[in-house]
Amino acid sequence: MLQQLFSPSVQHTLDLVGIFVFAISGALLAVRKNFDVFGIAVLAEVTALGGGLIRDLIIGAVPPAAFTDLGYFVTPLLAALLVFFLHPQVERIQTGVNVFDAAGLGLFCVTGTTKAYEYGLGLTASACLGLATAVGGGVLRDVLANEVPSLLRWDRDLYAVPATVGAAMVALCIRWDALTPLTSGLAVVTAFVLRLLAMRFHWRAPRAWNRRSTVREEEHLPV
Amino acid sequence: MLQQLFSPSVQHTLDLVGIFVFAISGALLAVRKNFDVFGIAVLAEVTALGGGLIRDLIIGAVPPAAFTDLGYFVTPLLAALLVFFLHPQVERIQTGVNVFDAAGLGLFCVTGTTKAYEYGLGLTASACLGLATAVGGGVLRDVLANEVPSLLRWDRDLYAVPATVGAAMVALCIRWDALTPLTSGLAVVTAFVLRLLAMRFHWRAPRAWNRRSTVREEEHLPV
Amino acid sequence: MLQQLFSPSVQHTLDLVGIFVFAISGALLAVRKNFDVFGIAVLAEVTALGGGLIRDLIIGAVPPAAFTDLGYFVTPLLAALLVFFLHPQVERIQTGVNVFDAAGLGLFCVTGTTKAYEYGLGLTASACLGLATAVGGGVLRDVLANEVPSLLRWDRDLYAVPATVGAAMVALCIRWDALTPLTSGLAVVTAFVLRLLAMRFHWRAPRAWNRRSTVREEEHLPV
Repeated sequence: MLQQLFSPSVQHTLDLVGIFVFAISGALLAVRKNFDVFGIAVLAEVTALGGGLIRDLIIGAVPPAAFTDLGYFVTPLLAALLVFFLHPQVERIQTGVNVFDAAGLGLFCVTGTTKAYEYGLGLTASACLGLATAVGGGVLRDVLANEVPSLLRWDRDLYAVPATVGAAMVALCIRWDALTPLTSGLAVVTAFVLRLLAMRFHWRAPRAWNRRSTVREEEHLPV
Repeated sequence: MLQQLFSPSVQHTLDLVGIFVFAISGALLAVRKNFDVFGIAVLAEVTALGGGLIRDLIIGAVPPAAFTDLGYFVTPLLAALLVFFLHPQVERIQTGVNVFDAAGLGLFCVTGTTKAYEYGLGLTASACLGLATAVGGGVLRDVLANEVPSLLRWDRDLYAVPATVGAAMVALCIRWDALTPLTSGLAVVTAFVLRLLAMRFHWRAPRAWNRRSTVREEEHLPV
Repeated sequence: MLQQLFSPSVQHTLDLVGIFVFAISGALLAVRKNFDVFGIAVLAEVTALGGGLIRDLIIGAVPPAAFTDLGYFVTPLLAALLVFFLHPQVERIQTGVNVFDAAGLGLFCVTGTTKAYEYGLGLTASACLGLATAVGGGVLRDVLANEVPSLLRWDRDLYAVPATVGAAMVALCIRWDALTPLTSGLAVVTAFVLRLLAMRFHWRAPRAWNRRSTVREEEHLPV
């Protein structure tokens, strides 16, 4: 067993904050898609808990944490209620929500990688599951809302790359026997800052070379 | 172990009836989407067994019941065959199908909650999984058919709320040590009747307050 | 434990070839959908490993093979890189890619069925999971790309039927105690050749009878 990343109560509080802001993003999309109050709650839950759920099913940690900790279940409902009653105000502070979302991204890619390694997976697989923990909920959110996952679209600021960097840092620290609360925290902050920079300067990943040749591109390009 | 809800053979027969009508709804959507006979069979299987499959993966009951009971596998194929040959007739008795679907909804939210609790989950988590058992197949059906899940849409009669009420009743009965065949049956009937009333009177859940402010709403509203 | 289908190293090489061509099909779709380089890699991984992942979760083989063998993880990345740099050339040899894809289909429906049976599932369930191994990745690919799964569409050449035949042959061989490398190989070749014939002669499965009556068909028919 690795050292605790942070003290248990600090860790749990951070988890709940991350879950809350992920749930906000799910609830906001549900409102934009014109879902009813129940749809808002479902999309909030799925967005907040989906990434960890995928990780836990794959590493065999059943029942998943999302179903054993009541706080994990109730927090997204609070986010859904908040958005239900006050979503114009929440939309208005979208930038602030995005900053917290970046913090959640940084936190979950690190804790996801650590948990997968504790369950006996290799370093590469652990880093992949750290990434899946951080971005999986957003992908499920978009699939349920019948949209192309924003994770995969080229016209979105980098989201997976910061999480990949954070997860890879943790894997390297484990490899070099240097995973301490300090280095873990550094990985969280690195992913967090990278995501903030990506949002600030609209960093994007390149698309395939020589795309001109594909048949269906025109319909997607705004010209 | 809790008491059996009903005698095993009665329970199994009810399960198969529920699976059959859920499969009908999947097969009908497949025909409407112009899928071929294989697509009809796949959508029938997924709709009928998907909810229980999700529940079993989460509670760690592998291999899931859907893969250990041949009757669970064959029943959706029969429904697919029926719709393949006679779908105009099946469409015509849609109201009757909906009544059976409501019965399946009531049954599965109760048996799903009971099974999750038997596998050691808490009461809230068990009720959630009861709900997931009842509605999960329909969500997978809509995702595979590339449609917004009708579960989440505001312009559909209440579907999840009756199942939630049924699952919550079971959880409360367990809490108060009062889960008997009688109270279980009462929960099934309550969910069933609530769903029938929702269909009859077109009950709907509210959408978020002050929706006017969202950018993308117009494209979804018919005016 | 059944006999090894082939010698371990031959089997592993064949697996990697199948994974590579499945990944190519995912990466090509990602380029057509205008995804960025990260989206191309994700879609390649999901297409290549998704079918086996679903099978392993259902039979309880956690962590799934996709997360324990580094070669399984790296191979789709190589396919993604190839498509990223050279996709016009890859598109041009699409027919060759399709032939290898057919080989992967034949291989995975056989190995998937065998693995499920080794984990204690019944013959019908094993054949279903063999089919799921072969076609599951393609379904996940299309769901993530927000398209109707080509598996379910009537206007695509038969894809699932060859895999079903191969999986059923393996199940029958097990039933008759006749599963040898020879009969397994025969099942692979049968599925492979059936798929090639389906592509060559545009074999398609029938749609439901009397479809005229459905409301929404017109919008899907090109005439």
